[in-house]
Amino acid sequence: MSSTQPARGTRDFLPPDVRRRAHVIDIVRRVYERYGFEPIETPAFENIETLTGKYGEEGAKLIFKILKRGEHESSGQADLALRYDLTVPLARVIAEYQNTLPKFFRRYQIQPVWRADRPARGRFREFYQCDIDAIGSTSPVVEVEVLSAVSDVLTTLGFDDFRVRLNDRRVLQALLATAGVPPDRETDALVALDKLDKIGPDGVAADMTARGLDPGVAAACLRLFAPAPDRAAVETLRSLSVRLADRKDVLGTLETIVAMAESTPVAGRIRVDPSLARGLSYYTGAIMEIAVPDLAGSLGGGGRYDNLVGMFLGREVPACGFSLGLERIIVVMAERGMFPPDIASAPADVMVALWDESSRAEALALAGRLRRDGLDVDVYPEPDKPGRQFKYAASRQYPIVVLAGEDERRTGTVTIKNMRTASQITVPMADVATHVQTELKRSPVS
Amino acid sequence: MSSTQPARGTRDFLPPDVRRRAHVIDIVRRVYERYGFEPIETPAFENIETLTGKYGEEGAKLIFKILKRGEHESSGQADLALRYDLTVPLARVIAEYQNTLPKFFRRYQIQPVWRADRPARGRFREFYQCDIDAIGSTSPVVEVEVLSAVSDVLTTLGFDDFRVRLNDRRVLQALLATAGVPPDRETDALVALDKLDKIGPDGVAADMTARGLDPGVAAACLRLFAPAPDRAAVETLRSLSVRLADRKDVLGTLETIVAMAESTPVAGRIRVDPSLARGLSYYTGAIMEIAVPDLAGSLGGGGRYDNLVGMFLGREVPACGFSLGLERIIVVMAERGMFPPDIASAPADVMVALWDESSRAEALALAGRLRRDGLDVDVYPEPDKPGRQFKYAASRQYPIVVLAGEDERRTGTVTIKNMRTASQITVPMADVATHVQTELKRSPVS
Repeated sequence: MSSTQPARGTRDFLPPDVRRRAHVIDIVRRVYERYGFEPIETPAFENIETLTGKYGEEGAKLIFKILKRGEHESSGQADLALRYDLTVPLARVIAEYQNTLPKFFRRYQIQPVWRADRPARGRFREFYQCDIDAIGSTSPVVEVEVLSAVSDVLTTLGFDDFRVRLNDRRVLQALLATAGVPPDRETDALVALDKLDKIGPDGVAADMTARGLDPGVAAACLRLFAPAPDRAAVETLRSLSVRLADRKDVLGTLETIVAMAESTPVAGRIRVDPSLARGLSYYTGAIMEIAVPDLAGSLGGGGRYDNLVGMFLGREVPACGFSLGLERIIVVMAERGMFPPDIASAPADVMVALWDESSRAEALALAGRLRRDGLDVDVYPEPDKPGRQFKYAASRQYPIVVLAGEDERRTGTVTIKNMRTASQITVPMADVATHVQTELKRSPVS
Repeated sequence: MSSTQPARGTRDFLPPDVRRRAHVIDIVRRVYERYGFEPIETPAFENIETLTGKYGEEGAKLIFKILKRGEHESSGQADLALRYDLTVPLARVIAEYQNTLPKFFRRYQIQPVWRADRPARGRFREFYQCDIDAIGSTSPVVEVEVLSAVSDVLTTLGFDDFRVRLNDRRVLQALLATAGVPPDRETDALVALDKLDKIGPDGVAADMTARGLDPGVAAACLRLFAPAPDRAAVETLRSLSVRLADRKDVLGTLETIVAMAESTPVAGRIRVDPSLARGLSYYTGAIMEIAVPDLAGSLGGGGRYDNLVGMFLGREVPACGFSLGLERIIVVMAERGMFPPDIASAPADVMVALWDESSRAEALALAGRLRRDGLDVDVYPEPDKPGRQFKYAASRQYPIVVLAGEDERRTGTVTIKNMRTASQITVPMADVATHVQTELKRSPVS
């Protein structure tokens, strides 16, 4: 007998789960469209070369590879891989359809991605990303629009306490240089620092020295990157003055983003945080993360990546985006009771009970009549004692049961039982839908 | 430079494609819910043992396998596999959550599946199935409800010429016995016959003899299974009288399904077709397929599988379901022009043009004002000549452009350009949303 569990790190979603997920996705989609973002979808798997060399060392380890089919299967060769994020597939799409897509393409994409990560609380091997990206412009208007849209999503979902951390890849690099990290070891240091939330300062220090960084340099990094909420961001930025090339440009852009954001839904939520490190190797400019106090890690993150499309296209196309994690949003919303109460409502408005075998066609016709009137209708599939059928309807929380027994069929009527008020009426068959609609509007006795 | 193509047999969906797919999926979902079906979702991949031994020989060949991660990677061992359909994952879910799910569980599931099939016109390696299944009853009411729901979907989408072919696995077996196929070679014969549409009678005969079936038996099978529209189904069924065990039961059930269907949306569309063969090995009773004249193959198929859940649960749970193929529906709808004309509408109602760098914050505030009024708004991201911005807006088919230039900002006004009527007005900033809404309702000059 086969095991009945889903694969490790993945989950089944039963009807109440799917309804909660659909509630969030609908709002995400609606808000993204309000900002002019358009939907695209890409395949679950890509040619393996599409994904390799895009995520850095840590990412590469987590890519699920698919065995080549046919005669090559026994060789263990992999020619396909499950997508690891939605950004690299987007970069490929931009390059492939460059003549079709508009100059400033705003796209959203809500699809699952897969990572062979160690499963943990809130961390899965299959999870949904809700991405927006704006392609084609280096203007900081893009960063502000992206942050506005995701803030608007979270506000519409009911979040009122999220905070945005904003940094720039180049500030990070300057910080690393200040700490004594050689330019060719920046990636090692960043990959280690990005795990600060997960493995703590000691883990990061150990990881850094394991990667061959000097222990003194590791300690200096940790001093600079340890959370320091009481140190003003501007101070830290000033201290970078010596090392930061393009200082005026980089700091100016961060200031512009914060200033422009004041006239948008993200107003008052942004904190420039020079210690914000994001591990993905493709970021080139602004990087950002959104978090709430009661969730370790973030609800989502993003940034500017002006070179990634060029890896497919051969010429650079600027881009900036943000990815909201569906599962992380849902975890917090569930814990805080933020879902509307009617979301777990009954799967149907009405159940048609079955009197006996000879009345099956009439029961199906009755169900059809109610459905044509816009009602969601289940049919009890086999003849059974009325008491058992009503008990089943109660267990399913169906508000209404309709039944055409022998008497009713003789007189061309139907009996409607209101399960919430425990009352019942017998009405002409022709009027059944109207009466059911009326009963549905009656309040429960409680 | 990496290739920019999606993997073989898969496709990217650009915004107009996604909108068409969403149109179909929304209708499918709405109709399925009208029949009391509830949504579930399952992971893209399963433990490999969950899928093996469930689809028969041909299916097994087409399963995409995922390499075990970590130190075992070089061994070429696969421990996971992409789901091949939505039915086997459902059977696993029924077994896993048997104490949570209702006795008569009606579920729908709209998700992609993956098959390493040879790609061809309308046949992909990644495609969406829109499944409904009713669990827990052997009553033929279930078959009728399932067929009614999918017929209702197709009618609501605008199809008026689809036909349902209905058969029973046991009638098939009787036909095979009549042709001289030994009981232990039934699967071989069915797998070959299921390819009749794809490879023709000669291909099927060759495949059968390659599988060790007697050439005379192969010829007899082809005589019985060749499309014979002018031979009445009842005649064929009569000719089975000798060989068909449970004849009364099997033929009675088919007759009951057809009779009950007459009071539902599938009325008049069902044809009992003893030559209908479906390849999947898990069917045990009724099998069915829906087709339209202008598409080779079917729009979808299904049947009863009373033993599959038992492979996970250890006790039998009756089940019957149907799977509509999203891509096949879309191919026909596109060719017939069945999509509503407004589906490829502009990605936004309004574009906010950008006067100069110093007015960026004001442009963002203006966009926010319009969005709060329910409008979908794009913002031109960088300062540019007004003519180029209007040209861009025209190329995107945005109906309205709003602009606050120097004059407007001095007087607290905004200029609204209606791109369809080529007229423009200047209005107070406070009233801009109302005026844009009015302009959107004006007819184009054409």
